[in-house]
Formats: sequence, structure tokens, C-alpha cells
Amino acid sequence: MARKPLDYDQLNENVKKVQYAVRGELYLRASELQKEGKRIIFTNVGNPHALGQKPLTFPRQVVALCQAPFLLDDPNVGLIFPADAIARAKHYLAMAPGGLGAYSDSRGIPGIRKEVAEFIQRRDGYPSDPELIYLTDGASKGVMQMLNAIIRNERDGILVPVPQYPLYSAAISLFGGALVPYYLEEEANWGLDIVGTRQSVAAARAKGMTVRAMVIINPGNPTGQCLSEANIREILRFCYEENLVLLADEVYQENIYQDERPFISARKVLFDMGPPLSREVQLVSFHTVSKGYWGECGQRGGYFEMTNLPPKTVDEIYKVASIALSPNVPGQIFMGLMVNPPKPGDISYPKYASESKAILGSLRRRARIMTDGFNSCRNVVCNFTEGAMYSFPQIRLPPRAIEAAKRAGKEPDVFYCLKLLEATGISTVPGSGFGQKEGVFHLRTTILPAEEDFPAIMSSFKKFNDSFMEQYEGYSRM
Amino acid sequence: MARKPLDYDQLNENVKKVQYAVRGELYLRASELQKEGKRIIFTNVGNPHALGQKPLTFPRQVVALCQAPFLLDDPNVGLIFPADAIARAKHYLAMAPGGLGAYSDSRGIPGIRKEVAEFIQRRDGYPSDPELIYLTDGASKGVMQMLNAIIRNERDGILVPVPQYPLYSAAISLFGGALVPYYLEEEANWGLDIVGTRQSVAAARAKGMTVRAMVIINPGNPTGQCLSEANIREILRFCYEENLVLLADEVYQENIYQDERPFISARKVLFDMGPPLSREVQLVSFHTVSKGYWGECGQRGGYFEMTNLPPKTVDEIYKVASIALSPNVPGQIFMGLMVNPPKPGDISYPKYASESKAILGSLRRRARIMTDGFNSCRNVVCNFTEGAMYSFPQIRLPPRAIEAAKRAGKEPDVFYCLKLLEATGISTVPGSGFGQKEGVFHLRTTILPAEEDFPAIMSSFKKFNDSFMEQYEGYSRM
Repeated sequence: MARKPLDYDQLNENVKKVQYAVRGELYLRASELQKEGKRIIFTNVGNPHALGQKPLTFPRQVVALCQAPFLLDDPNVGLIFPADAIARAKHYLAMAPGGLGAYSDSRGIPGIRKEVAEFIQRRDGYPSDPELIYLTDGASKGVMQMLNAIIRNERDGILVPVPQYPLYSAAISLFGGALVPYYLEEEANWGLDIVGTRQSVAAARAKGMTVRAMVIINPGNPTGQCLSEANIREILRFCYEENLVLLADEVYQENIYQDERPFISARKVLFDMGPPLSREVQLVSFHTVSKGYWGECGQRGGYFEMTNLPPKTVDEIYKVASIALSPNVPGQIFMGLMVNPPKPGDISYPKYASESKAILGSLRRRARIMTDGFNSCRNVVCNFTEGAMYSFPQIRLPPRAIEAAKRAGKEPDVFYCLKLLEATGISTVPGSGFGQKEGVFHLRTTILPAEEDFPAIMSSFKKFNDSFMEQYEGYSRM
Repeated sequence: MARKPLDYDQLNENVKKVQYAVRGELYLRASELQKEGKRIIFTNVGNPHALGQKPLTFPRQVVALCQAPFLLDDPNVGLIFPADAIARAKHYLAMAPGGLGAYSDSRGIPGIRKEVAEFIQRRDGYPSDPELIYLTDGASKGVMQMLNAIIRNERDGILVPVPQYPLYSAAISLFGGALVPYYLEEEANWGLDIVGTRQSVAAARAKGMTVRAMVIINPGNPTGQCLSEANIREILRFCYEENLVLLADEVYQENIYQDERPFISARKVLFDMGPPLSREVQLVSFHTVSKGYWGECGQRGGYFEMTNLPPKTVDEIYKVASIALSPNVPGQIFMGLMVNPPKPGDISYPKYASESKAILGSLRRRARIMTDGFNSCRNVVCNFTEGAMYSFPQIRLPPRAIEAAKRAGKEPDVFYCLKLLEATGISTVPGSGFGQKEGVFHLRTTILPAEEDFPAIMSSFKKFNDSFMEQYEGYSRM
């Protein structure tokens, strides 16, 4: 019988090649167990609200009013909404002819792109041009748009840190390019080794590849490190010398849990370096409303800013963005609110400030408790989570556990994570989903479960791990 | 000097090949004129709220409450929200752990997919499986996902109606496939001629192409026709015989302006036909919250339903959807509300029903006024808009106008539409953006300007057109 066009073996091979571990085997098994009634702690995705984080009040008030503009004429509106939220809703509705129900320009609402540019200028100390800022349905969509523009064929290579967030490997497969790995050094607190990166590029070129772009994730996902200014300078010089576009995934820029290495944007460092680099290096920087202390993942708001891209290219990106008409408008308003939050003196400022501070303070404590907890476990070592939302401990699996995994037809880290899930309900992602050096095993967990649940989670993890280790290391049960 | 990776000539060729006329030269020129202070009537995109259509009240109340769930505990909430909106907000929040700020499953919230399945079952009289329904950020994103899965290389052909909505040509270019046109017959009220379609497939195959899918847009965009049941049956038989996936773009299914040919879904006709077709033909059907009498374009909500796709393919589509994590959650709730609106007896039903009826009634009148208006103009002939949101008149350009266009370096219809824009502020899309037969010229306009503006718009159009025709036809001014 003839194969039909949407039979599996007839599909686009690039689609089939895609791997996406964050919602892979572990997630699917966890979903099954949940259906069967088991209590699952989903730490596979950085999804704070799903784990109980409450939304910030002010932005939700503003967007609720924008969704229901007829409330602005209701005499009772002042009873349940503060005056500055009402004023801000009017501010955004004036920018969006037709309101939230109308497609915006495909690049996003001009007034909100201007608010983003002002935020960037305040942050970096250099002017930013709203015409080079495009709003997106979350940062992932922006990353995909740029990779789609860059990748021409299977010989086009994209330098990606390993371990990496699998958005990059998945999108590169989908667009038919090649991932060129550069390894982060676990012993150097997941720092980037530029010598090794240079070797990766040379090796890729020796195989006939054209390396076109370099991805950095700062703060790191899944690794949690914050890049130093010196490190970013080195990266920019490298991109300049090797003629690479730098794709700077900076979605965790507000998630910093130490004071030694504050976040510095790649763009600021680039402009600090001056010409020729500041005029030559092509840079695209990504941001989102899904992370920070907002965690508004489900709203799908984001932006990217293009630096040193020629106008004709900027136009092409616009054209392709137009195919799907416009990013969702409520998500755009969240982005405006994130870059332009209540200020001291505003009615809503005290509440906004105390909510934000409570979330960030708690994340900082959780980062510390989790790292310490992992390091107290047998055969587990873990760098401190300097930033982002994840912990990425190394699990030193005994040879007998590796053999048992092989017999079960699983990667060793998948085997460990599945056992962890079945025993404790903790749903993690195996390190192999992010890439890791040969023979070394990790898992990724978010630091997002509610703070009050941490003692129980960490003790449940420790109990499982130590008994797993005893089983496969000791003489007892095998 | 070395070319940089994001210089224009270094971009992915498929990106450069994309054409997207709906936001093309005419739209850009209109935006410029608007900046200069000219009053522009944007009829280039089916964007009802941008032209003054008011949102339906009930869904906005529900989504506003979902955005601000703390209102549900406010003792004053009952003063400004009706009880059924409050109840419905609780219903959706119970389905979405973490609320609107959490990523949902990449396929969408299970409870809403179930509401969609129930809607389809009521509409078609056949059961529908929520596991085969995926929610999307608007229908366009779903179409792109499916085309990406189908197209393997530049010899894979997709049958697309001409004139067509340029989403299809643009996405096919972007994914590196080939568009195989089949022509709709203007003289037969834009009906599909299956003999001509068969010839198109044969011609494509003779060139070495594998034709893999067929797109239908019903009701038609830009052409406005409603397909008869007999016509859909013919199409399904054709897809069965030729081994094509049918992609049924049914986003205008609620926009019907006559009673002779009601909307019938391709899926209903397929199941009515029975085996072997009902078990064999692969069908994907698309819907949206952007059209109908909702017009909630900016919310970006949509779904597609897969029929007769094997489970492994359904899983692959899931995997690829996961890369961008989840469709926006407020848009999903709009979809739930659209397929499950207030019912007779509900507090909000009378208002919902009268708002919906007013919008549809007015669209029906506007469809008639616009068609009649065009047909009253010199050298303009126009089929009646049976459905959808557009009018697609043929403009019979005199030879001297065609010569003048050539001298100006423009397509003749672009030339005409630019002159129309400059003279009247009416921003349309030239027929060449949708495809048309050689030597025949059209423009597309939406029927969406406010009803009270129609007399002025149509008289301004007539004045421009008749004077244009006189200029290029008559002896006077050349």
C-alpha cells in the first residue's frame, strides 16, 4: 500500500531529527504517573507559576483592564483597581488602536518597543533604537526566527555551549543546520574556555563547515553560571576574529543569586570595547517576560534587539515575522510593564517592590539550599547556582548502575532520573538532554518548588540517592 | 571586506524568497502616509477591531478575571462582573494549574481541547478526539507547523488555490518547498475546477515533483466563495486518488453572508462519505479566534484537528510544538470560550447573542453594499462575497494604464492600488499578491470598515476609479 504523505516515514527528516528533552521521556512518564494519581513535583521546566509562585499584582491589574476596557467606564472600577493601574491601562490602550483584539504591527506595538529601548538605554548606558527591537511570543520564538535566517544548509554550523538548553539543538535540527559544541568547564564553575572553543571551530572548519554564529546563555541554563565581564569581552573578540554573529540569550538577567558577578549585557560590553568591534560585531540579544521575578511564561512575551545588522536584513526579519501576522498583544503589554514597572512614589510601587523582593530573596535562598543539599549526597557534586533557575548536579554513577542502565536499554542518567521519579515524584531532566562530556552524568532541576517544600524535597532526594548508591555500589543487594 | 553572517547576501535563501503582500509595498506606503498625517483606511488585513469592531463582552470579562484571579476574592467583584463570567473564570483557572502565567502542555490545556472536541462533534455529528486537537497561537502558526512537517525538499509540491492567501506561498517558500497552483474560476463564482486541478498535478509530476498536499480555503480568502458539499466531496475523492493530505483552512466558517450554501466542514463530508475514504484520507483542519464575529486577532488563539494521521506522526508534531514550549494561555481560553459560548438561560446569553447578531448582520449588509458598489464602477466586476471577510473585484485596466505602470516599474495592479491609496487613503492589497491569471488584475479589500463609513468609502473609491479609467481610457489627458 502506498505510504501517505503524513505517515511517519514520509515526514520531513529535519522534523524527525529534533530532540527536545525538557518535554521528553521523563516528562511523558511523569505525566502518566500524575494521571495515575501520583503526586509529581515538576522541576523539568522553568515554570514558576505552575509551582505556586504568585503573579505580581500590578501588571495583572493593568492587563485585566486592557482585556476589559469597558471597565474603565464603570463607576465602580476604582473600588477594585488602583488609579495607577487604570492610568497605565489607558496608556497601553492608546498605543494599540483596536486594543488587545487587533493584530499589531508584526514587529510589535511601536510605543512598547520604545519602552524597551528606554529600558536598555538605562541598563547599559548606551542609546537603543526601537526600530531594531522586535517583540515576540516569548524568547524562544525570537531565537527560532534568527536561526532560521542564519542557517542555509547542513554545512552551516552554530556554536552552542554544552551543556545547553535544548531549544538550540532542537531549532538547529529543525532548520537543517549543524550544532558545533563548545564545552563549559564544570571544574571552573562552568566557565567558558576560549582555547577549547577555538579548537571546536577549527575542527568544524576542517570538516568543511562554515561556522556562522555563537550562542551564549548568560546566566547559564542549565549550568547557572554568570559570565564575567572579562569572559564576555573575550567572547566578543572571538566573534569579531572568527566572523560570527553572537546570539546572546539573556533571559535570566534578573535572576542573580550572588553579588560578585552581577549581570552585564553583551551589548554593554560590546559598546564599552569601542570601534572597530562596537561597529562590526553582529549581535542579537533576547529577553522575555517568562523569567526574572515575573515568571509570566504562559503569556508568551519577549523581544530581541539587533545590533550591527544591516537595514536590508532587518527588513527581511520583519517580512518573515509578518507571515504569522503579529505576536500576541497581551504578551506585548506584559513586556512593556516589565521594562517600565511602577516607580517610587507611584501608588502601586510599595506592593510591587515588596512582591518582587520576596520572590527574588526566596529564589536566592532556594539556590543555596539546593546546592548544599545536593553536595550533602553520596556521589553528587554541584556547582553553586549563581543565576538563572536551575541546579545541574553531577551524579557519579557507579559502574554497576551504568551496567544496569545498559541492560534496561536506557542512558545511565535517564535510568537514574526515572528511578528518582518513580521513588519520589520528582520530575527532572537527565543531563544527556543538554549534552555532557563522555562518561559524566548530570540531572537538571529547577530551583522553583515552593520554599516551604524544600526540606521535604531535598530529604526525599537524599534518601533516594543514597539508597540508590548503596544498591549499586555496596555489596548488599546485588 | 569579509561578508558578515547576517549581511543580506549571506542569509538563508528561503527567507529571502518569501513574499508576503498583505504587509508588503502597499502596507508600507500606507504606514508612511499615516505617519505624515494622512487618514488611512486599512483594509489590507482582516483585522476587525482595528477598524472599530467592539469585542464581545462575555469572553473579555472571563479572560480579565483569569488575568487577575485575586479579583475573585474581592467582595466588590460582583458589582462589575456577572456571576456566569465569574463562574467561567473559575472553570478555566481550575483547568490551568498556575493560571495564565504558567506554560501549558505544548498541545494546549487538556480541558480546552476537550471543549473544542465537543464543539466539533456538535457541528459535524461525528465524535472528535481531544488528543488529535492541538491549540496554537492563531491558525497561521498551525498551518506553518503542518507545512514544515510535510515539506522535505524543493521537489515537494503543495497544491494551493490561486488566488490564495499569501500565508501559503510564504510558508512554502520559507520551508523550501514548491507551490503548485490550481486556479479558481472567476466566471464560475471562484469555484474549483477539478479537471484543471488534475492537470496542475500532472504538470507538476511531469517536472519531477512529488505533490504531497492540497490546501483549500473555505470560505475563500481572498475570493469569498463558499464551497458546496458536492465540491468538497470531489476534492476529497481527488485527495484520496492522488494520495494528498488535505489542509482545510476553515477559519471563516462563521462568516457566511447567504443562505444557499452554508458552511460544511471537510471533516463532516469526509465522514459522510464513509470507508474507505473516511479511514484513509489524511486531513488537517484549522480554526481561529481571529475571525467569525469574534475578531480577536491580537489574542492569537487557534487550533488544528488531525484526522487519519498515525500516532507516531501526531507525536512528532507534539515534539516540534514543544520547542517553543506552549501557545499563549489567554489565547487558549478565548478558544475555549468561542467553542463553548453562553447558552440560552445564562445571565450573559442575551447580551452575547445580541452583540454577535449585530456584528454578523452588519457584515452581511456590508458584503452586499461593497459588491454592489464595485459593480457600479467603470471597468470593475466583482463576485458577491458569499463568506469570509473580503471583496476581490477584477479591475479591467486599459492598455494605457498598463503601459504607464510599466514605465513606473510597477505591476499594473500595484500601480492602480498605489494611486488609489494616494488619492483616497484606502489601503488595499493588489491581486498579484494572491496570484491571478496572466493579464487579469484585481485588488483585495476587507469588508470591515465601519458600516456608517461605507457610503463615503465606496463613493470615494468610485470617484477615484472612474477618473482613473477616464484618464487612461479616454482621449483627454494623455
